[in-house]
Amino acid sequence: MKTSLGAKTLLFPTPVLIIGTYGENDSPNIMTASWGGICCSNPPCVSVAVRPERLTHTNIMARRAFTVNVPSADHVKEADYIGIYSGKTKNKFAECKLTPAKSEYVDAPSVEQFPLVLECELFKDIDLGIHALFVGRIMDVKADPTILDADGSIDIGQLRPLTFSPSDRGYYALGGFVGQAFDIGK
Amino acid sequence: MKTSLGAKTLLFPTPVLIIGTYGENDSPNIMTASWGGICCSNPPCVSVAVRPERLTHTNIMARRAFTVNVPSADHVKEADYIGIYSGKTKNKFAECKLTPAKSEYVDAPSVEQFPLVLECELFKDIDLGIHALFVGRIMDVKADPTILDADGSIDIGQLRPLTFSPSDRGYYALGGFVGQAFDIGK
Repeated sequence: MKTSLGAKTLLFPTPVLIIGTYGENDSPNIMTASWGGICCSNPPCVSVAVRPERLTHTNIMARRAFTVNVPSADHVKEADYIGIYSGKTKNKFAECKLTPAKSEYVDAPSVEQFPLVLECELFKDIDLGIHALFVGRIMDVKADPTILDADGSIDIGQLRPLTFSPSDRGYYALGGFVGQAFDIGK
Repeated sequence: MKTSLGAKTLLFPTPVLIIGTYGENDSPNIMTASWGGICCSNPPCVSVAVRPERLTHTNIMARRAFTVNVPSADHVKEADYIGIYSGKTKNKFAECKLTPAKSEYVDAPSVEQFPLVLECELFKDIDLGIHALFVGRIMDVKADPTILDADGSIDIGQLRPLTFSPSDRGYYALGGFVGQAFDIGK
């Protein structure tokens, strides 16, 4: 018999994503989001939920573009900082000693120091309530060579992505391999 | 300088979610999804991407409800089986020796053996391309007492959720605590 916890946003794990956008005067900004994920295989899309009062919301609506950056566990302090403070009052790139990099395909900056970035064009924006859901069409994925294996694929053990637990609000690393998908269940 | 990998659905980590629905004659069905996540805090919502040809798509459209179940790492084989085979040809509950349980708030079954379930009412369905995105309004979260700590909160170390890596298509466990959110970055 399960225990009722109420109507809450309790799902495990959630990712730790850094959303890059340009604001007025091409000022680069970043925010941290855990309400996001892949949402379509073709066209390849990723979604991220952003509150309308956020600078990131204004920026995405104006530029119709954003990047989704995946920091490694080494950057947990920066990821948290980027989630605590607003780009309205802080230059988060400068405060975190991070470098904005131009994207190849979209009008949004990525974070040079973070090993993986998805360059996204705004595909749909959906008003859900306290959050708007932005669906980005993934135009390209770029990875630091240090996280690629000999075949040129992403090695998750080198990427070392963070996850966020919405119950204790903790960041957790990824653990070990437990099985091959589309195989172990046969 | 990063390496371009093309326009692909490469994000890390993604969750391993088991979507429960009723079909014709109240037959319970389950499918595995990794394209999903929390997408709004209020109303509390979770999204999951489902291809229109899936039985789950038909069932959600007919019943306007689904459950999102989180299996623990102990159930990795069942989670994979549920993702490989279709409910059109297999009774996946029976094949996996899993038990469908009635929900309290919605017209969809949960999996008794999986420690966490979100009971969801269909809130929006959005056509994105090869996948439709179903946004469910979370009506209640129910947890097995074995995953709750002394305060009644979910202990992620007891839940032991799975994650899916879209590069090597591997399942990975969660690792250790690396920092407290809204604190370590101050």
